[in-house]
Amino acid sequence: MTATFDDDYFMKKALQEAEAAYERGEVPVGAVIVIDNRIIAKAHNLTETLTDVTAHAEMQAITSAANFLGGKYLKGCTLYVTLEPCQMCAGALYWSQISRVVFAAPDPHRGFRTMGTSIHPKTELKEGVMEAEASALLKRFFKQKRD
Amino acid sequence: MTATFDDDYFMKKALQEAEAAYERGEVPVGAVIVIDNRIIAKAHNLTETLTDVTAHAEMQAITSAANFLGGKYLKGCTLYVTLEPCQMCAGALYWSQISRVVFAAPDPHRGFRTMGTSIHPKTELKEGVMEAEASALLKRFFKQKRD
Repeated sequence: MTATFDDDYFMKKALQEAEAAYERGEVPVGAVIVIDNRIIAKAHNLTETLTDVTAHAEMQAITSAANFLGGKYLKGCTLYVTLEPCQMCAGALYWSQISRVVFAAPDPHRGFRTMGTSIHPKTELKEGVMEAEASALLKRFFKQKRD
Repeated sequence: MTATFDDDYFMKKALQEAEAAYERGEVPVGAVIVIDNRIIAKAHNLTETLTDVTAHAEMQAITSAANFLGGKYLKGCTLYVTLEPCQMCAGALYWSQISRVVFAAPDPHRGFRTMGTSIHPKTELKEGVMEAEASALLKRFFKQKRD
């Protein structure tokens, strides 16, 4: 029996990255970038560890995937990320011309859609893949922070 | 006679960074970050050299300034940049809560204002400082690319 490389499969990998962020005390967001069913980059939020607001999971994954491909455009690639990208990350995705962005949980406060940021018109967007799992992890993190 | 640390002074430093980008064949954009009249970060666009869409001058300067300060927030800092920030950079500036952003040339196509991106409500914005010099350098670059 072979594994099925569908959106759930890759979002699970992004969720594993989010869990690694959680273990470090970082807001638990994880991302992977995939081309031809192959993961070429994975990353999790490191803003606290690196004391750097630019160290979101998506930003690191974009840099890493471009490094792997040897070119700055991510055509043919899909980003899986556990939380809706922010303005910064959506802006970076715009420049990368990535083919597809799949996210799990929406971010009604700081997500790029609320903030009015544009992604590239050729980028396909899908939301809600494993949303319950991603949201539960985020809620667990913020509850622990408050307690 | 002492140097006057005004906006022109620091924008000249950002223009020197833009010229360094030009020499490398990069879109000539430069940035410096200043706190208490002291430059704590300088950077120029390196997207081609690093094959990385996230390597804008502002992004590098934000990371560098936060590293210098030992904290991720840039309160009390001013960013001087020779071109209006894009969505990505404006998004990063939003997270940094930087106190002031001064840019030289507007970017009517891909600037954050046209694209609808928000900077932090507490960030003061000033435009047009040494605009002629910054625009001339950009025009020279794109003319050379076409010829």
